[in-house]
Formats: sequence, structure tokens, C-alpha cells
Amino acid sequence: MLELKTVDEAKKILGKIRLMETETIEATESLDRFVAIDVISPEDLPPFNKAMMDGYAVKAEDTFGASEEKPVSLSLIGEIKIGEVPEKEVKKGEAIKINTGAIMPQGADSVEMLEYVDSVRGEKILIRKALTPGENVAKRGEDIKKGEVLLAKGHKIRSQDIGALSGLGITKIKVFKRPKVAIIPTGDELVRPSRRPESGQIRDMNTYSLAAQIKKCGGEPISFGIIKDNYKVLKKKIEEALSKADMVLISGGSSVGAYDLTLKVMGSLAKGKILTQGVAIKPGKPTIIAKVKEKIIFGLPGNPVSVMIVFRKIVKPTILAMMNAKEKAKIVNARLVRTVTSSTGREEYIRVRLEEKEEMLIAIPLHRGSANIVSLIKADGLLKIPRLSEGIEKGQMVEVELWD
Amino acid sequence: MLELKTVDEAKKILGKIRLMETETIEATESLDRFVAIDVISPEDLPPFNKAMMDGYAVKAEDTFGASEEKPVSLSLIGEIKIGEVPEKEVKKGEAIKINTGAIMPQGADSVEMLEYVDSVRGEKILIRKALTPGENVAKRGEDIKKGEVLLAKGHKIRSQDIGALSGLGITKIKVFKRPKVAIIPTGDELVRPSRRPESGQIRDMNTYSLAAQIKKCGGEPISFGIIKDNYKVLKKKIEEALSKADMVLISGGSSVGAYDLTLKVMGSLAKGKILTQGVAIKPGKPTIIAKVKEKIIFGLPGNPVSVMIVFRKIVKPTILAMMNAKEKAKIVNARLVRTVTSSTGREEYIRVRLEEKEEMLIAIPLHRGSANIVSLIKADGLLKIPRLSEGIEKGQMVEVELWD
Repeated sequence: MLELKTVDEAKKILGKIRLMETETIEATESLDRFVAIDVISPEDLPPFNKAMMDGYAVKAEDTFGASEEKPVSLSLIGEIKIGEVPEKEVKKGEAIKINTGAIMPQGADSVEMLEYVDSVRGEKILIRKALTPGENVAKRGEDIKKGEVLLAKGHKIRSQDIGALSGLGITKIKVFKRPKVAIIPTGDELVRPSRRPESGQIRDMNTYSLAAQIKKCGGEPISFGIIKDNYKVLKKKIEEALSKADMVLISGGSSVGAYDLTLKVMGSLAKGKILTQGVAIKPGKPTIIAKVKEKIIFGLPGNPVSVMIVFRKIVKPTILAMMNAKEKAKIVNARLVRTVTSSTGREEYIRVRLEEKEEMLIAIPLHRGSANIVSLIKADGLLKIPRLSEGIEKGQMVEVELWD
Repeated sequence: MLELKTVDEAKKILGKIRLMETETIEATESLDRFVAIDVISPEDLPPFNKAMMDGYAVKAEDTFGASEEKPVSLSLIGEIKIGEVPEKEVKKGEAIKINTGAIMPQGADSVEMLEYVDSVRGEKILIRKALTPGENVAKRGEDIKKGEVLLAKGHKIRSQDIGALSGLGITKIKVFKRPKVAIIPTGDELVRPSRRPESGQIRDMNTYSLAAQIKKCGGEPISFGIIKDNYKVLKKKIEEALSKADMVLISGGSSVGAYDLTLKVMGSLAKGKILTQGVAIKPGKPTIIAKVKEKIIFGLPGNPVSVMIVFRKIVKPTILAMMNAKEKAKIVNARLVRTVTSSTGREEYIRVRLEEKEEMLIAIPLHRGSANIVSLIKADGLLKIPRLSEGIEKGQMVEVELWD
């Protein structure tokens, strides 16, 4: 085996990732999609100076010095309701009754809240609290100005983004198409989940955990069904996958023989190039990366735990890069309860469980040996031991990356 | 207005939340759904003692004392490939070649890795490293035992759960039906996003940001379109919504008049009961909660920021409770860069932006006044000031709740 690439090197040798094509969809249907072109605000928000309280629109300077003991008297000259265009201007010594959300009248710069105002026979009001200019008013363009970038290219669309798009009248949005990711599970020992495995057989899990992970990061999985460890069949399937998908994942057999077969097939593809035959990550070392023209093929290990970790650390960032996006991992700090050692020279990911103890999070490392995906259910996230570290001592504060 | 309920009191007065009905779906389609009944493991995982390395299955005791200088010689009696049922038993002094993932033969308790073994003419091998019993072997049932709870009722299904279900042959799973949540935006000032608002009008955003939030927490939004501030029309719409949905959200006008109207209608519903007319949360005070038989109606403020925060703090936990689930908020620790004060007697949520500075997260409080949803785009999450606190001082470490 050649020298292992580190995880960072592995990402680098992928080279420039080709961006997905774009499509225009309804903004209201864009949750969790990725913006394909900077979205510019077409207008100021708020679109007008807006009252933020029910009360009286006034000039703040008219209220200076007002107090419970020395209220200031102003002339009430009208009322503005929501949706109404103010006709009158507030002049010195005047006030207009106003509702939250209504357009501020000309001349007024602040709103005195109802509770600080006494009405003295319809025409006069008494103000019992001084205002600062701008108080209880949202200024036109305060949140965003016309022409400003609202959502940058590559941004993942969230609930509030959809709300804001609606508020700005942006009903269509250009997003990246979802990358189609082919999944090819290989291995003579694999059977479908609905089948009862005979001795030595094992049900295919990687197809389904990979499909869910692909969906979760914005891609569209295409499952190709279990392929036996056979050169011709595997090659044909990969070629078919390359013609249908933007990326191909082969979840390999876990034996050396299966690894060698996957490597051989990946190396034989027309216009293909093997980029690395192993990655310095644990678990996940026997990961093969190749490129056929601009499409990336990952030969993943068969071990379902390795598959999940390699997906998370290498495949997912690649899928996101196809949509100009970056992952924001959710990290929490916790105190490690047991020393963990590592001497592999590889970046190692330890499954940890988090518990609250004395108002503090503690991280409990789980059994590392297990290759079973169930161990990922018991874990709350992953603890990374850097490549050249020999481990992390008990009692240290560590960063734990939570599952999505 | 009556005395405000605290957020915790508001949740309490909702009483026992009625659980949703259940439905059985394909396990592979269950991502992000909530488990309706404890899922029990039907078998041991791994289902057999499994080799975790390519190498030789041996009795560990035979290797005791083995070293580079003093290798131990064992008799090679055969080979086990993946998927094969071992026929021979490993006796004292014997070894069987084995592949990762294959079934361990009777008698052997550990696997010597290939790299520590020299082959001496086919029949004899030399072992250069001592093993501990169990080394490089995953024991049957080590990850989960038959009868153990794999996924508890209310658990949100993730990628690894789907993988594990597949591995265990569980192809169908009982989940809670998605709660149907009706959204009724009210307000004379509202227009559809596709329309150009006239002066004083504003586009409806709450329908869309609420719909996205509802989807995001596992519900199914039903939009009812903009309703004018009219008693009869609003009442009819709410009644219709109650007949079609499991929960009703009214996103109210923001004026006192609109609040009073919503309150009046909510109070007039047959078999209905107003539970609170205000919640001690900022922003979000004018939140009304009612129950009609077992269905909950939230009268939310019109302010889109308030709506999002009240949704997150009160509505979302209720939707989750309908599926026996609890939110696990994603919290990060950061240093507050500016003192924030609060004197409202309400639990206050400040929008903050997070930045990395000198390898540490800092939290920058954003302008609180804004009622515009765009301010939520600029924020990375929320900082809570507890109800009876007067604020948080600059330089303190604070917990920031990230957006989903």
C-alpha cells in the first residue's frame, strides 16, 4: 500500500470540485437547499419607519425632561392605524396616536408607550417619561438595505430565511441541484435486510445508512443493490453509476481481497485516476479515492462504523463543496472521564457518550473495537484524536462533534 | 391583562399532551421520524464471534510470551473466508487463517494480525506478538443483545439508526404520525409575498417561516391563507382548522386591537378554554394559549421575530411532546463581548452572532429592537437572560443555543 494521505491531503487531492448545476424553485419549498447565487435584497426592510409599540408618535425632544412629577403636555392631532398612510405631519408640541406596525408620520422620531401617557380630554395628552430619539421605532432599512446580500451563495436555507424571502417578495430562488450520489454495496457476504442471513452472511446496512446521510446533507441517493465480489460485474455497475450520478460510493467488502478487487476495478476505469489508496484516519484506513473525468468515486471500507466516519469526514464535505457550502459542525465541550490513547499515526475518531454531571458535560469514550453500527447509536458524537497525538488524558476538556 | 405565565408555567398548563396516532412505515424511509414504540433487538449483534482483522484465529494463551526475538510456532490447519461456516476447531498449538468479518472458529478467542506472522512452509506459522484473549475479535452480542432496547419510544431516527435497523432485519417501523399544524395568519395589513405591498401593508412571512419550522421539527404544516381582522371570519377559520389539524397556530396582528380580537375569538370557541393571555418571554409576551378539547391553539404575536422565538420555546416542545420526544438543543459556549441588561421580569432571548477570536468563540449581541426576521438571519443563535436576572456582564461565558 502506498503512503497514506491525511484527511486534509485527501480533500486537497480531490482538486477543484465541480459545482452542481442550478435550478429555480419556489422559495417556500427551499428549506435545507443551498443558494446558488447571492440573493440581494430588492428593498429596504423595514420598508418604512415603523412604530414598534402602541402609543403616541412624537418628537423625542418634546419629551426631554418629562417625568411622573413633571409630565409634558402635547396636542393630539390624529391617529394612524396599521396599513394607513399618515397624512399629517407631527410638528413641535404635537402627537399622533399610533399602533405597533404602523407607518410613522413625518416629523415624529419616536413612540411614547401607552402606559406612560395620560389622556386629558381628547385634545391634550400628558407624557410622563422622556424618550430618546428613535426609541420604539424601527428605521427604514435598519434590518437590510436594498442591494445588500441577504443570503450568500452556498448558504443553507433555514426557516427564517424562508420568512425573510417571503417578506421581501422573493418567491423564486435559484438553488444548486441536489448531487446524485450512487451507492454500490459490494460483498459476497451481504444479503438484503429482509432476508435472514445464513451463517457468515450479514445484512446490508451501508446502503441505508449512506442513503440517509446523503439525504441529510442535501444529496439524492441512488441505490444500486448488492454486488458480488466480481470484477466484471462491479466494473459494469460503476460505469452505469458514473453515467447516472454525480458521485459514486462503493461500500467495499472488508477483506483484503475485496479491497484489492475494488482497487483494481477503480484503477481500470476509462479516463479514471486513483488519487489515493488509503487515508490516515481511524477507523477508515482502506478508503480509496478516484476521479473519472470530474466525477469522484469513493471506495469505502465495508465496516459500517468506518463508512459512517469516512462519510462524515471526507465524503460529506465533498458533497457540500459541490454546492459551494461548508459544514458547520456542532461542537460541544466536555470533560473526558477516561484517558484515551492512540498510536496509529492516523487521525482517530472515538465514539463518546455525553452525560451531564454536576452541571457539566462529561464525555465517556465507548469501546473502540466494535465495527457495529449499533455502537454509533449509543454514542452522542465523536471525539477526535489528532494524527500526531498519542492520546488525550483523563480530565482534559475536549471538543465533541455531535451527530446531525 | 392577567398575570403572565412563565415559559415553564405555560408548558405546564398545557397539561397532558395527547400523543399522536401511530403508523407503520418502511424503516428505510424513517429518517427524522419519531419512534412510537420501543424497538427491541431481535437478535444478537454481531450475530457471531467475528474476526476484526485479517490474520490468524488462535488461542491467545498459545501466544503468551511471543516476541520478535522469540516467536511462537503454531500449526496452520485451514482457512475461513467471509460467509463460510467454520468446520474445524482450533486446538492448542493450532491456527486458522481468517479474514476480517469472518466467523471465528470454535476454540479460538483472538486474531493475530497478518503483519506479526511469518509463514514457515505452508504448515507452520511463526507468531511474533503476544495476544490478549479477545483481541481483534468482536464478541457475539457485544453491541446489542437480543431483547435489548435499540431505539426508545420518542427517539428521532438518524442515519445510523436506519443502518442498524437494516442490519437487524427490521424493515418496518412504527412511528408517530406527523402532527398536522394549521397556520392562520391574520391582519388587515398582510398581503401575499407575490404582491407588491402598498404603503402600510406588509407581506406575510409568518406563514412560511412557521411552515418551515413545523416541518423541521417533524410536523406537517397546513396553511390557511391570510385572514382579515374580522371576528366571524377568524372564528370560522379556526373552527375549520380545528377539524383538520392537530394543533392550530394563529399568527396575530401586532396591534392591541388585533390581540383583543384573537383573544375574543379564542375565548368563544365551543368547549374551549383560554389557558393564558400572556407569557413572560421577550420578545413574545402577547402569546395566548387555549385548548379546545385536547387540541391546543396558540395565538402568536404578529412580530415575526417574536413568532420564531415563541415557536422555538413553547410551540416546538409541544409538537415534540405529541411524539413523546424532547428537544436536544445544540448549545455552544462563548464569551459575551458586551454587557446586556434586562429589566423586564421576563425570560429574554437576545439574538447573537458568533465569531471565532483567538481560538475562542465570542458572542456579539445584536440590536434587540428589530422586529424583522432578517435580524434572525444575521444571528447564529439565541442567548437567554433568565427571568429574574438583570442582565449578563461583558466577559462572562454564556451558553448560546444554535439554530437547527
